[in-house]
Amino acid sequence: MSSTAVDPTDPAFALHRGGKLTVASTVPLATREDLSLAYTPGVARVCEAIAADPALVDEYTWVSHTVAVVTDGSAVLGLGNIGPRAAMPVMEGKAVLFKQFGGVDAVPICLDTQDVEEIIAVVTALAPSFGGINLEDISAPRCFEIERRLDEALPIPVFHDDQHGTAVVVLAALRNAATLLNRKLGDLRVAVSGAGAAGVAVTKMLVAGGVNPAEVVVCDSRGIIHQGRPDLTETKAELAQLTNAAGRTGGITEALRDADVLIGVSGGQIPEEAVAGMAPGGAIFALANPTPEVHPEMAARYASVVATGRSDYPNQINNVLAFPGIFQGALAARAVRITEGMKVAAADAIAAVASERAWPDGEQPAGPDSGPLRADAIVPSPLDPRVAPAVAEAVAEAARRDGVARA
Amino acid sequence: MSSTAVDPTDPAFALHRGGKLTVASTVPLATREDLSLAYTPGVARVCEAIAADPALVDEYTWVSHTVAVVTDGSAVLGLGNIGPRAAMPVMEGKAVLFKQFGGVDAVPICLDTQDVEEIIAVVTALAPSFGGINLEDISAPRCFEIERRLDEALPIPVFHDDQHGTAVVVLAALRNAATLLNRKLGDLRVAVSGAGAAGVAVTKMLVAGGVNPAEVVVCDSRGIIHQGRPDLTETKAELAQLTNAAGRTGGITEALRDADVLIGVSGGQIPEEAVAGMAPGGAIFALANPTPEVHPEMAARYASVVATGRSDYPNQINNVLAFPGIFQGALAARAVRITEGMKVAAADAIAAVASERAWPDGEQPAGPDSGPLRADAIVPSPLDPRVAPAVAEAVAEAARRDGVARA
Repeated sequence: MSSTAVDPTDPAFALHRGGKLTVASTVPLATREDLSLAYTPGVARVCEAIAADPALVDEYTWVSHTVAVVTDGSAVLGLGNIGPRAAMPVMEGKAVLFKQFGGVDAVPICLDTQDVEEIIAVVTALAPSFGGINLEDISAPRCFEIERRLDEALPIPVFHDDQHGTAVVVLAALRNAATLLNRKLGDLRVAVSGAGAAGVAVTKMLVAGGVNPAEVVVCDSRGIIHQGRPDLTETKAELAQLTNAAGRTGGITEALRDADVLIGVSGGQIPEEAVAGMAPGGAIFALANPTPEVHPEMAARYASVVATGRSDYPNQINNVLAFPGIFQGALAARAVRITEGMKVAAADAIAAVASERAWPDGEQPAGPDSGPLRADAIVPSPLDPRVAPAVAEAVAEAARRDGVARA
Repeated sequence: MSSTAVDPTDPAFALHRGGKLTVASTVPLATREDLSLAYTPGVARVCEAIAADPALVDEYTWVSHTVAVVTDGSAVLGLGNIGPRAAMPVMEGKAVLFKQFGGVDAVPICLDTQDVEEIIAVVTALAPSFGGINLEDISAPRCFEIERRLDEALPIPVFHDDQHGTAVVVLAALRNAATLLNRKLGDLRVAVSGAGAAGVAVTKMLVAGGVNPAEVVVCDSRGIIHQGRPDLTETKAELAQLTNAAGRTGGITEALRDADVLIGVSGGQIPEEAVAGMAPGGAIFALANPTPEVHPEMAARYASVVATGRSDYPNQINNVLAFPGIFQGALAARAVRITEGMKVAAADAIAAVASERAWPDGEQPAGPDSGPLRADAIVPSPLDPRVAPAVAEAVAEAARRDGVARA
């Protein structure tokens, strides 16, 4: 049976039958009186009040707790450009996670266009219906322009999760890894393999969080990004400017030489000889799914802390640790956008939850694992219910600090 | 206190706090195993199956039971052009009714544009996310072109409720009124006051249902629509062609002279002298809300059957009798559009429910009210739970008969 056919023995298909979402009413509708309040004529008085004072839309509609999860289906998971219909199960899943962890009502919107201008026009037109826009699975480099222009145009948070969700969790993980390694973020040499949506955002996020950009080297499929390369897109030219102060050239082997940290967000396999060139006792985050850039068992031979994107290994770097709480906090603060400060605050909150591990009485082991942090638990479990509330609180606070909050 | 301010003693405001809708998950998410089925990696297998066979989107996502309730806020209730934000409470209310009566998941989409081309482009782009499009509170004549072009472009039902929902319920009511009056639809002389979205659709629906178009006269604010008028829009020119075979001219007084039926969908008051010219023993449906074109007590002096749009008088012509069941049936049949036959079937089903009144033992009165139909109950209550399932069944059957069903 081909991998694209429906497998009746696969529980994923049984679970997905009929979809994963439903819309429910929060008001009673049993009597004519109920009907005359929730609908005409009573609803007209609420409409008139909002027409007179548009800010009341936050108070008397669901807009302020609702997010659109928008995709064009161009870069869905690792599956590529499978289009809007095939993308829907992922967007529904995202909506389920938004609700479960952040209490945010999310509506999947899969667009029948991959034209940048059209996507921007459509999302702009939709915006009054939502308190925030979560962009999802839109391919690079289109995703950068779409996010930037929507962020400028709209008075609500716009957040491309593939970029920033991943970046926030990577920063959280690296903070805790650095603590375990007894190193400062600013002293680490970091190699990033991959300069797509996630690679670019991870690089910027690490710098915002305290990594020294001069000591970061980013590789794309053609090798190290440096200012001498003639083939750079606008985004990569920015990276060349920001990173690699020494102007290193070469491929992944040269990028990894003496690096303390490898962050793989490319999907491309990295040969063992290259990994072997890293400084000993560092960290490897190999995030490609389902096949990490460096197999975790190999990674463990060269690094003290290993993380992946997979749920069947320790330290799963999973966006679900970030986006529900980020939007919950941004919506609670009525933030007009999501700032770097809010993202760093989210990362710090995630890192803090992982290091707040409470040992049940008598279970605290002796030895190197006895501290609050453990090398196999630098990030919380994706199901840890403490994460989203902590992230939301930190993000709302940062929104107020950064002057982007309206509440 | 002005009527546009928030009145804290008004229960409509208390009810609307936080909005009226929520999105809920239909799948468990308690364990890592749950997460790996509803989200990655399990969801990828479902995405790949849909990418290989797009028809599977109906089976494995929520699309096939989900409708977008789309407005541009240009003609909201009787409030006029109050914009997308102030329209949201109505769209949420509509979504609540969709769910309550039709089991349909509906998402309110309030657009920040009133440009016809932009609205068409946006809804076309959104379409893969939904099983149907309910257009709502879009002003005439823009609504005609928007609906027609979307209906042509999209492979899913597009339905402007202000037009067709009203029209379907008017036809249902008129069927039962004719039965009570012992008249045939084809023998009635009908005056329609109002040639906006509802007036045009009502006229066409009545003709589709059996009213003789030659004997229909439609009035707009400038008087009777006839082929000699030089000021007609495209839509009104069509009406002039279709109706008023005798070429009557004049105003509402001339339109009502010897008419058996008055259908008011204009909001403009009709003077008693004009109403007095109607043939005796007919029907008056004065649907403007909150102020009917003819006060129901005055109407009762000139007609045997009186209906309004108000919940505090008998015979409320309420769209909620139509749209939940129409979409429920259209979605169940995977209809690619909503045909005239499906609308007539919906009207017949609504009429049938009203005439299926079961008298509790011993309660059946003597006299003219003893039959299955009563002059004060020509349509069912908007809360009657029998209506939507009956409409849905009739509509799905009609879709199959008309060759537009995919299931």
